[in-house]
Amino acid sequence: MAQDEFAIIERYFSKIGKPADNIVLGIGDDAAVVEVPPTDQLVVSMDTLVSGVHFPPDTSPADIAYKALAVNLSDLAAMAATPAWFLMSLTLPQNDANWLHQFASGLSQTAEAFKLQLIGGDTCHGELSISIQIAGLVPSAGYITRHHASPGDLVLVTGELGNAALGLAHQQGKIDLPQNLQAKCLLALNRPQPRLELVPFLREYASAAIDISDGLQGDLAHLLKASGCGAKIEQPALPVNDWIEQQGCYDYALGAGDDYEICCCVPATQRAEIDSWNHGHPDCRLSIIGEIAESGYFLHDGERLINLDNAQGYQHFD
Amino acid sequence: MAQDEFAIIERYFSKIGKPADNIVLGIGDDAAVVEVPPTDQLVVSMDTLVSGVHFPPDTSPADIAYKALAVNLSDLAAMAATPAWFLMSLTLPQNDANWLHQFASGLSQTAEAFKLQLIGGDTCHGELSISIQIAGLVPSAGYITRHHASPGDLVLVTGELGNAALGLAHQQGKIDLPQNLQAKCLLALNRPQPRLELVPFLREYASAAIDISDGLQGDLAHLLKASGCGAKIEQPALPVNDWIEQQGCYDYALGAGDDYEICCCVPATQRAEIDSWNHGHPDCRLSIIGEIAESGYFLHDGERLINLDNAQGYQHFD
Repeated sequence: MAQDEFAIIERYFSKIGKPADNIVLGIGDDAAVVEVPPTDQLVVSMDTLVSGVHFPPDTSPADIAYKALAVNLSDLAAMAATPAWFLMSLTLPQNDANWLHQFASGLSQTAEAFKLQLIGGDTCHGELSISIQIAGLVPSAGYITRHHASPGDLVLVTGELGNAALGLAHQQGKIDLPQNLQAKCLLALNRPQPRLELVPFLREYASAAIDISDGLQGDLAHLLKASGCGAKIEQPALPVNDWIEQQGCYDYALGAGDDYEICCCVPATQRAEIDSWNHGHPDCRLSIIGEIAESGYFLHDGERLINLDNAQGYQHFD
Repeated sequence: MAQDEFAIIERYFSKIGKPADNIVLGIGDDAAVVEVPPTDQLVVSMDTLVSGVHFPPDTSPADIAYKALAVNLSDLAAMAATPAWFLMSLTLPQNDANWLHQFASGLSQTAEAFKLQLIGGDTCHGELSISIQIAGLVPSAGYITRHHASPGDLVLVTGELGNAALGLAHQQGKIDLPQNLQAKCLLALNRPQPRLELVPFLREYASAAIDISDGLQGDLAHLLKASGCGAKIEQPALPVNDWIEQQGCYDYALGAGDDYEICCCVPATQRAEIDSWNHGHPDCRLSIIGEIAESGYFLHDGERLINLDNAQGYQHFD
C-alpha cells in the first residue's frame, strides 16, 4: 500500500490522545498552538530512541511506541511535572502499513493512559528512530531539579533496580533467569513505568530528583555534582529482586541503564512521610538507600566502603 | 578523542544562543523549564533532517546546522510567531570532534542570529539525523493558519521560487547553471532564509499562510483544502530567475521542494499595503501570483488553464 507522508500523518497520527483545553490548534498545520496557564511553568524535554541502540530491532511496534513515550514521561516525573502534550518525529525505513498500525495503536493507548495529546511532528525516510519532545506543567517554581540536595538528606529510589537490564541480558541469552522472574524483567525492559504517581510527593518533600535511566550510580553522580555534595549508599538497602541478591550481581542495579525509576533526596526529618507514602502506594514504593554527605561518593557493601567517584552510567559514545 | 554523551552536550551544546528572560532553567537537567507570558500563546513545531534524504551527505556541518534550524524557523514564520527556544536531538554515526565543533559553531551563529536558545535534547548513536523542536510566541489568537483564505483574496509568495531545486540539480550534475546563478542557487539550497521578517505583515493582513518547503503547488493545495477554496495561479507572475523563465522550466518553481518561502492570502483591498511592504522590504518582496476562487485549482500559463488538482509536493514515501 503506497502512502505518502501526509496520508501517514492523517491516517495514523492525527488523533492520538484526548483533546485538552490548553491545546488551541493540534496536528495538521505548519505548527501547533498551545496555552500555558498563567499560574504554571512549562517543563520540556526531548529523547530519541534508535533501533538497535535503545531497543532490539525485533521489539514489537507497540512496545517501541510505549517506550518512546515512557522515557520522556520519566523525565517529566523527575522534574515533578504533569504531562500535557508531545510532538513526535518518526523516521522509518519503509512504509509498512501493518507496522504503522501497531505502532500508532500502542502510541494511542499510551497517550490516553497518561493524558497526553500528540500535537505535531513529522515522518521521514531513514533508519528506524523515534524522537519525542514532551511538555508538562508545574505550578510556577514548583519544579524539582538535581541542584538542591543537602548533607543529611536521605537518598531514596522508586521501584526495583536492575530488572530491565536483567530482562535484556536474558533476551540476549547472556543469562538464564529463573522462570518466575522472566515476565517481570521483560516487562521492566519493554514497559517501564514512568513514576508520575510520585509527582505530588516530590513537590512536597524532595530537595532534588533525577531519572536514573542511565543507571543509578552514574545518574546519582550527576545529582551530587549539581548539588555540590557527596553520598554514601548502602548496597544491602538497594531494592533488587531475589536473583540479584542471591547472585550478588549488584552491577545490574547500580550500573546498568534502562531503569526508569526516580532517585530523590528528602530531608531526614521526613521519615514518617516516607513511611506514610509507602503505606499508601505499594506499587510506587520508595526505598531509603543512603544519605547525602558533605563530600565523597561511596558504596557500603556491608563490609567495605567502595569509592564510586568517576562512576559512569550508560553512554552512547564510549 | 573519546567523549561521552554528557561531555559532548557539555562541551558543544550547553551554551547555544543567548539566555532569555522566559527561560527559567536551560540545558543540563532532566528537562528545561520555561515561561509563556500570560498575553501570549506558544507555537510549536518539529522537523527532522536525515542525511541523504534532506541534504547530501557531503554537506558542510555548519550548513546542516543552519538548515536544521531554518526549516523549523520557517514553520514559525508561516504561523506568524516569533522564535523563543528550541530542543535538539542529534544522532551521529561517530564522535568526530572536528565535525561537532563545526556543527556547534554553525548552530550557535544561527541561534544567535535568530534570537533563540537551545534548552534541551539529547545525542545518540546512529545514522546522521537532526531533529529540532522549535517554540515561538504569538500574542493570543494572533497566529495565522491555513484555514481562512476567502474567494477574492490575493495569493502572494515571498522571494524567488525554484532556486534551491536548481542549486541541487546543478550540484548533482543534472543541469549546468550559468555562472551568475550558481552562488545564488547554492545559497538558496544550503542557507534558506526563514521569512521571519514577514511576521508583522502576516499578523496585520493575512487571512491564511503556509510554508512552501514541499513545493508551491502541493503546499498551496493544502491551504486550499483547509480553507475550502480554489485558486487560479498566473504562471507569468511567478517570481523566478531568468534561467527558469528563458528555459520555461516552471516545474522547478511549482513542484520542487526546499523553497523555504511563505505563501499567504490577503484581501484584495490591501493592494496598497502590499506595495508599501515591497517598497520597505526589498529583501523580502511579496509577489502577487494569483487569486483565491470558490473552487477549482488552476494554473494559467499565459495561454491555457491547466488543472492543478491532485497536485503533490515532495513526499518521503512515494
